[in-house]
Amino acid sequence: MRISELSRTSGVPVPTVKFYLREGLLPPGELTSPNQAAYGEAHLRRLRLIRALVEIGGVSIAAVKDVLAALDDTSLGVHDLLGSVQYALIPAQPRDDPEWREAFADVNAFLDGLGWRVRSDAPARIRLADVLHALRRRDGEPVAPDAVFGPYVQVAAQIADAEIASMAPPGSPREALAEQVAVGVATSEAAFSALRALAQEDASARRYGGSTLESARPADQ
Amino acid sequence: MRISELSRTSGVPVPTVKFYLREGLLPPGELTSPNQAAYGEAHLRRLRLIRALVEIGGVSIAAVKDVLAALDDTSLGVHDLLGSVQYALIPAQPRDDPEWREAFADVNAFLDGLGWRVRSDAPARIRLADVLHALRRRDGEPVAPDAVFGPYVQVAAQIADAEIASMAPPGSPREALAEQVAVGVATSEAAFSALRALAQEDASARRYGGSTLESARPADQ
Repeated sequence: MRISELSRTSGVPVPTVKFYLREGLLPPGELTSPNQAAYGEAHLRRLRLIRALVEIGGVSIAAVKDVLAALDDTSLGVHDLLGSVQYALIPAQPRDDPEWREAFADVNAFLDGLGWRVRSDAPARIRLADVLHALRRRDGEPVAPDAVFGPYVQVAAQIADAEIASMAPPGSPREALAEQVAVGVATSEAAFSALRALAQEDASARRYGGSTLESARPADQ
Repeated sequence: MRISELSRTSGVPVPTVKFYLREGLLPPGELTSPNQAAYGEAHLRRLRLIRALVEIGGVSIAAVKDVLAALDDTSLGVHDLLGSVQYALIPAQPRDDPEWREAFADVNAFLDGLGWRVRSDAPARIRLADVLHALRRRDGEPVAPDAVFGPYVQVAAQIADAEIASMAPPGSPREALAEQVAVGVATSEAAFSALRALAQEDASARRYGGSTLESARPADQ
């Protein structure tokens, strides 16, 4: 198909498709004449993935390149591929401050206790340390990781298990599995987080009596 | 206390405290001499809240101002306060594109079906439409909201109910409740999302045989 059809079918505007081509996120089409190229199913699938990462995951173009490189590196197993997507979605920066480092050590000890198989450089470790660090000094009382994170452990494991179990089985062809994993990780994070926010609003309406600003009503359009 | 002690106790650097004072995020201290001010517990509590919003929630300074305005507006009930924090945490932009609008309408119909009491302008509705829109056109098959979001509904409701139930009961003094809600909403989102990512990595290691890059080991420091 031509670029105009690729754009129409994928829902990505032509200028954006051209930008992805220039940035090397999308491989060039097959030249059918000096200034016309043909694109195929592989381009469509890749566009869907880029869109999921950029629009849903808020991933930067540089990080998308890393994910696509992992996708194209056939020496990488599915597990590492999933990691490359996940790590691109989680912005995290370790800090120098001694109290932050203490929170980070406490988080790692807590995770050790769970026995989860998680890489030492997983950015989610840093995010948990950020949370613990922000909550500490609250009224001068020490805040233990278990008190903050404990209530979520079982539910998080339950959701994650179901998500990973819903992906194609280990023996599947790598290409199909790879893109499924990448799109799945990016979109499920956004979907779950949004649903949890809406459920919180509903639970709060029931507990605290709803809004005084607007009668909470469903949107009609 | 002086600004140096406020900084030490809160863990927020002095230049950052001064920036918050200049921006009006933190009320001025009580002047004890022409160029010295005294700060109290209220400043400490507010600093913790700002930190949770900015560092954990990634909220912009402009959005923090909105949250603090809601906090200070005693005519607002707790439910609306919770909404102001939640809405500041969710960046969302509705689109003009007809296919996006169709996805948005489908999301709203799906949410109507759940019967949750959620405001029509809740940004999480927009995030769900973004997800649905990105997943559509996949192999040309229609993607129903129920297929994408259905599996998360029960768990999201369960977590949200527990979170709201753990907050102070409706009759509590507004001030205590308000900051607890604000800090809680900002940090619990980050904590849950990070734990879910780690649980996913563990589940993936079990299903797909772990990393070929690094033996997945706990971090020691």
